[in-house]
Amino acid sequence: MAAMGTFTPSYVAGYACPACGARYALPRGLCACGQPLLVGYRLDALAAAFGREALAARESSLWRYRELLPVAPPDEASELAAGGTPLLRLARLGAMLGLPELWAKDEGLNPTGSFKARGAAVGVTALAALGVRDLCVATSDNLGPAWAAYCARAGLRLHVVISDDVPRPTLRQSSIYGAEVVVAPGGAAAAFALAEELARERGWLNISAFREPYRVEGKKTIGLELAEQRGWSLPDAIVCPTGGGVAIVGIWKAVEELAALGWLDAQRPRLIAVQSESCAPIVAAFAAGAERCGDSPYADTIARGLRVAKPLGDRLVLRALRASGGDAVAVSDAEIEAAVLDLAQLEGLFVAPEAAAALAGLRKLRGTGRVTPSERVTLLLTGSGLRRWDLLEERYPVA
Amino acid sequence: MAAMGTFTPSYVAGYACPACGARYALPRGLCACGQPLLVGYRLDALAAAFGREALAARESSLWRYRELLPVAPPDEASELAAGGTPLLRLARLGAMLGLPELWAKDEGLNPTGSFKARGAAVGVTALAALGVRDLCVATSDNLGPAWAAYCARAGLRLHVVISDDVPRPTLRQSSIYGAEVVVAPGGAAAAFALAEELARERGWLNISAFREPYRVEGKKTIGLELAEQRGWSLPDAIVCPTGGGVAIVGIWKAVEELAALGWLDAQRPRLIAVQSESCAPIVAAFAAGAERCGDSPYADTIARGLRVAKPLGDRLVLRALRASGGDAVAVSDAEIEAAVLDLAQLEGLFVAPEAAAALAGLRKLRGTGRVTPSERVTLLLTGSGLRRWDLLEERYPVA
Repeated sequence: MAAMGTFTPSYVAGYACPACGARYALPRGLCACGQPLLVGYRLDALAAAFGREALAARESSLWRYRELLPVAPPDEASELAAGGTPLLRLARLGAMLGLPELWAKDEGLNPTGSFKARGAAVGVTALAALGVRDLCVATSDNLGPAWAAYCARAGLRLHVVISDDVPRPTLRQSSIYGAEVVVAPGGAAAAFALAEELARERGWLNISAFREPYRVEGKKTIGLELAEQRGWSLPDAIVCPTGGGVAIVGIWKAVEELAALGWLDAQRPRLIAVQSESCAPIVAAFAAGAERCGDSPYADTIARGLRVAKPLGDRLVLRALRASGGDAVAVSDAEIEAAVLDLAQLEGLFVAPEAAAALAGLRKLRGTGRVTPSERVTLLLTGSGLRRWDLLEERYPVA
Repeated sequence: MAAMGTFTPSYVAGYACPACGARYALPRGLCACGQPLLVGYRLDALAAAFGREALAARESSLWRYRELLPVAPPDEASELAAGGTPLLRLARLGAMLGLPELWAKDEGLNPTGSFKARGAAVGVTALAALGVRDLCVATSDNLGPAWAAYCARAGLRLHVVISDDVPRPTLRQSSIYGAEVVVAPGGAAAAFALAEELARERGWLNISAFREPYRVEGKKTIGLELAEQRGWSLPDAIVCPTGGGVAIVGIWKAVEELAALGWLDAQRPRLIAVQSESCAPIVAAFAAGAERCGDSPYADTIARGLRVAKPLGDRLVLRALRASGGDAVAVSDAEIEAAVLDLAQLEGLFVAPEAAAALAGLRKLRGTGRVTPSERVTLLLTGSGLRRWDLLEERYPVA
C-alpha cells in the first residue's frame, strides 16, 4: 500500500516501525521492511491540552477516546458504535479458581458479536477518510463479518476470501451484509494467498491483521476502556485469547500511552496469551525465548479464530508479553468446551470458543501456580456464542 | 402469585391495576381481577430529591435509572448489564423512505441478543430480592434465553416450556444457560397451558408477559434511555415490533413518568405497533376501536416473537397507542425478509425478523401517508439476527 493521503487528525505524530525504526509522516500499510507500522501520537501535547476527567460525560462508544485515535469520529450515518462493553464480576468462577478478584470484559456485545468490531470501526473510518473504496481480506472467523458490517454502513466495498473449511457461520454472517464472498479451496493458507493476489491484481487494499496500522488502534480501546472502568487502574493480569495477536499489541499500546499521559496509576498488568493447542506459535516462541514465531503445527480446532500459523505481528506480540511480565499457554478443545459451559451456566455468559479459551487458559495457569490467588484477573471474552450456532446445534448438550 | 415480601425500594409507592383501580402496598403478580399491575412511584419526592443531570456520570447500563426502577441494582456477582444500547442514524434508508430524521435503537446489543434482557434484568433482580427461587415460562422466541441467562447469573432456577414448533435457536439458546427445558407438543397455546399447570403444581412463579409487574419496568428503560440520548426529547414516532406489547406499555410509562418529573420537553411521541399478518390482534383491535383484543387468526411466520394471540396486557397496549395518537400495522413475511436485507446491506445492521418488522411497518405507513416526511422516527430494533441462525442458513441469500 502506497501513501494514502494527507489527513491530519489532531494528535497523530506519524507512523513508526518498531522493527527497523523507520518513521513515516504519511499513512501507509506496512513498513518498507515488510513489518507492521504503529501510529504515534503527540502525547505531551495531548496531556497538556486534555484531561481524562473530560471523558466522563461522553458517549459510551470507543469514539469517547477520540484524542487517542488516528481519525476523527465518523459522521452519524456511518457510526455503528463499537466499544462500551461491560466489565462483569465472575464471582462463582472466581471462587472455584481461588481468585477473589476475577472479572470479564464481555466483548460479545459489540456490533456483529465480537471484539473485531473495534478494529473495523476505527479501520473502516480511517480508510474511508483516506479515500479507499475497496478492501479485501481472508477470514477464518469473525473478522469478515465485522468488517462487512462496517463497510456496508460506510459505503465501502469489501471482498472476503473464505477458505472452504471454515465454520458455516463465517460465510453466512459475512454475506448478509452484502460483502462479496469468494470461497477458496485449500484451507486458510490458500485463502490468505488468494486475498493477497486479488488485492494486487485489482488494486484493492488487503486489510489482513497488521497490514494497516488502524485496527490496532481500535483494539487499543479495550485497554483504555478497561482502565477507565476500573478508575484508571488496570488489573494484575489480562487474559487474552490470541490468534494474530492484535488485541495484545493494542492493549499494551494503551498501557504505554496511558502511562505516558500520566492517566494510569503505578500498576502495570501482565498480559497473558491463550492459544489453541492445534496452533500455538506464540506460546512456542514465548517458551523458547524467541523473538519471532517459527513453523507451527496446524490442526483443526473449534476455536478457529485462534488458528493463525504465521502472525505478521509476532514480534510485537512477543515483545508485549515479555515487557509486561506476562505468560502464554495453550489449551485443548475439550478444555475450551468445558469453559463454554461453565461461563454459560455459572455466570450467564454464552461466549464463542475463542473467548472461552481465556477461562480455560486461566484454569491451567492457576493449576500450575503461574497465576496466584492474590492476582486481580480480567478475562477478555472476545465474542458471543451466538456467532457459532454450528457448535450450539451440534456440540453442546441440551439440558 | 401471593404477596411476595416486604422490600421497599426508595421511590416505589405501590402497585396499581389500571383496569379496576385496585391498589396494593405489597408486590404481587396479577391484580385480584386478573389484570396486570403496574408499579407506581412517588414521583414528586423523586423530582424534589434528584435531578436528571446526576445521570450523566453513571454507568451505561439500565441501572443508571435506578431511582425509577422497582428494586436496587443487583450486586456485582449478578449484574449482567442490560441497556446502554446505541441510537444510530439510518441515513440511506431515511433517504429511500423520504424521512430525513430516521434513527434506530439497536437492542440486539443487549446480553443474549435481544431487548428481552431489559425485562429479565429488572425482573430477575426484583424477584430474587423477594426470595423467589423457581421461575417458569412458556416461550416462543427470545424470552426464554434472556431469562435463562439472568437466572443463571443470579442463581435462580428457570423452567422453560417450549412448544415443539418453535425455531431451533430458542431451544438451544435457552438450554445453554442450564435452564430446565420442557418441550411441549401441540403448539404455543398448549405450551402456555403447560407452563401455567407446572407453576400451579410445583409452586413456581409463572413469569409470562404481564404476570409480574417488573418486566414492564425493565422495558421502560428503553424510553428513558432514548429520551436521555436525544437530550431529553423524544422523537415524533417510535415504531415498536409488538407481540405481547410489553415494550409499548413500558415506553409509554416512561413518557408519563418523565413528563411528571418535568424531565421531558413538550413533544410526545406517537407509538406505532407493528405485528405480523399471521397474528395481529392488536392491529385488529386498534382498527376496530376496541378496548381489548378478540380472537385472532394464527398462522406461521418467521417473526415468531410477534405471534401472541391473546396478549394479557392488550388493554394497556391499546390505551398507550391511542393516548399517544399512535398507529398499528401488520406486515407479511416477505416484507419482513426484504427489510432484514435492507437493514444489513444498507445500514450494516443484521437484525432478527421481529426487529426488521419495524422497518417493514414504517415502509407501509409511509406508503399510505400515515407517517409523513416531517416526522422524526425511531425504529426499535428489538433483537440481533444472529439469534435466528436457522433463517440465516436457510432463507437469506449468499452474496
